[in-house]
Amino acid sequence: MLTINDSLEIKDNSIDVTAYGEVLIDMISREEAPLRQCQNFTRYFGGSPANVLVNLQRLNNATAFISRVGRDDFGEYLTAILEEENVNLDCMQFDDKLATPIIFVNKSKETPSWLPYRGADINIEENKNIYEKIKQTAVYFIGSFILSQNPARKTALKSIEFALNHNKIIAFDPSFRARLWPDSKKGKEIIKEIISESDFIKPSLDDAFHLFGKDNPENYLKKYHDIGAGIVILTLGKNGVLISDGKNEPLQIPVFSKKVIDVTGAGDSFWSGFLSGIINGLTIRAAAELGNAVAAFKIQGVGALSSIPPLSEIMSYYNINPSERGEI
Amino acid sequence: MLTINDSLEIKDNSIDVTAYGEVLIDMISREEAPLRQCQNFTRYFGGSPANVLVNLQRLNNATAFISRVGRDDFGEYLTAILEEENVNLDCMQFDDKLATPIIFVNKSKETPSWLPYRGADINIEENKNIYEKIKQTAVYFIGSFILSQNPARKTALKSIEFALNHNKIIAFDPSFRARLWPDSKKGKEIIKEIISESDFIKPSLDDAFHLFGKDNPENYLKKYHDIGAGIVILTLGKNGVLISDGKNEPLQIPVFSKKVIDVTGAGDSFWSGFLSGIINGLTIRAAAELGNAVAAFKIQGVGALSSIPPLSEIMSYYNINPSERGEI
Repeated sequence: MLTINDSLEIKDNSIDVTAYGEVLIDMISREEAPLRQCQNFTRYFGGSPANVLVNLQRLNNATAFISRVGRDDFGEYLTAILEEENVNLDCMQFDDKLATPIIFVNKSKETPSWLPYRGADINIEENKNIYEKIKQTAVYFIGSFILSQNPARKTALKSIEFALNHNKIIAFDPSFRARLWPDSKKGKEIIKEIISESDFIKPSLDDAFHLFGKDNPENYLKKYHDIGAGIVILTLGKNGVLISDGKNEPLQIPVFSKKVIDVTGAGDSFWSGFLSGIINGLTIRAAAELGNAVAAFKIQGVGALSSIPPLSEIMSYYNINPSERGEI
Repeated sequence: MLTINDSLEIKDNSIDVTAYGEVLIDMISREEAPLRQCQNFTRYFGGSPANVLVNLQRLNNATAFISRVGRDDFGEYLTAILEEENVNLDCMQFDDKLATPIIFVNKSKETPSWLPYRGADINIEENKNIYEKIKQTAVYFIGSFILSQNPARKTALKSIEFALNHNKIIAFDPSFRARLWPDSKKGKEIIKEIISESDFIKPSLDDAFHLFGKDNPENYLKKYHDIGAGIVILTLGKNGVLISDGKNEPLQIPVFSKKVIDVTGAGDSFWSGFLSGIINGLTIRAAAELGNAVAAFKIQGVGALSSIPPLSEIMSYYNINPSERGEI
């Protein structure tokens, strides 16, 4: 079992991270009001796995995406952005009947409400390309949103099995929300099943609450480990992250930035920094610090895809120096 | 068979018009650009049958709506407007899983492109309330959009059969668009079947083209009558409407307004004026003139639901005086 002081030996792969999940339109209200009162909306590039990949590319990693959009104007808009960022789209599928998914969100100082319009995303179909791509990848990253509906769920579960059989590193964002699932009991079971197969999971306190009910951070960590998770990174909002390997005392890493402009996509930025660290042979602890550092740059700018400085700059700015610590 | 010089004897009903169809969010771009380039959208009340009913209410008719929205913020917004306009919502259904439908449209000087997100609308379920409501109504109005998916289509077909058995007046907007239908051949068959059962249909030249292919207005009229349509009102855009009973020479009624600000919802306004005329015992010819008059007021304002003057004012303004002509 991995500890937070270990680093992973990454074999030479043509792709660092392949993600399975949604790319979608975020329609954000311009008004700060309940959604039913909002009249004006602005369209943004969205979808957590898509944000993670774009951020990974900007940190100089090679990525590929298994996803599906509608063969429509919104699908064209999203794939054009992914192409510009050089995300490999060999496994991007285009649906002739179902449209590109959208989530409406209201701007809000409190918890925003959201209204999802599923479409092509639920239709990701199994094919040989997917397995070929996973073979070439070091890390297989899976989102949760995509798991709630079939056939996308079946395709995901088979692809994860394939990745496990080929000793790929599994990174999973275990976010369970009952309203997305036709059967919420089954939903929890499936999320737990993938958690048990994962090397890295990064739940938020909110994710833990929706899966386990009300409890404290330490107990949440224990519950994730009891299911079978490898490394658990529990995000605590303004209190940073709690990282645990299930054997040693959990380590708390504070938020690196005091200036907070917009937290949208902070978790996705964390993933991109963290996985960059893992791919570059950092210890898990240093990779988590790098995750925090990338997130710190993100929350000082607006939007899920604010610009990121080069990896070396981020590392020196936040004094993340694995060699000085003897960690590489 | 009815001729355009006939008027219908309307029995005393508690509801003048019951409509079966969609109420939805029209998301219109603020930019005049292809949809894939549009970033900003404004939300409007939409759905052709919903617009027809609101306009009918404003012309002092009693209406009821058989429709379905999501139990969500957009559904609340739309039903609040229908309630304010006093449309009877005893047969409004609320879906716990599927969201309120949306159509994205770009602002454009050419033909705008549109991108539909279906949801609760496809799920209208049969129940006793629907039949009770139809029993109490004079005119049963059916849209086409709602027919392309089941169970809403099955519920529609059974309700039309019920209305026919109870000698209700059937008004149908026969708009066939292949991309909405899983099976476009079957789609055409179903549209034709309902046309054959209708007292009034109001296709546009575009609708006729999508159903029959390229032809001229006179042949289109003949084709609609050959299927079995009663009165056909073919809308010709800036050339007004062509009204035909299949026996006499078709009558062309020009557009009544030279000032054109926005044609959105002009067809729905026509329906509301036309059906008001029918309910008030005007001849079909005078009712069509009233339809044109209401549409003329509409196109001089912005939005599908621009304000409408009282019926008497519209009739005197456009010199629609059925008694002078000996038509009542």
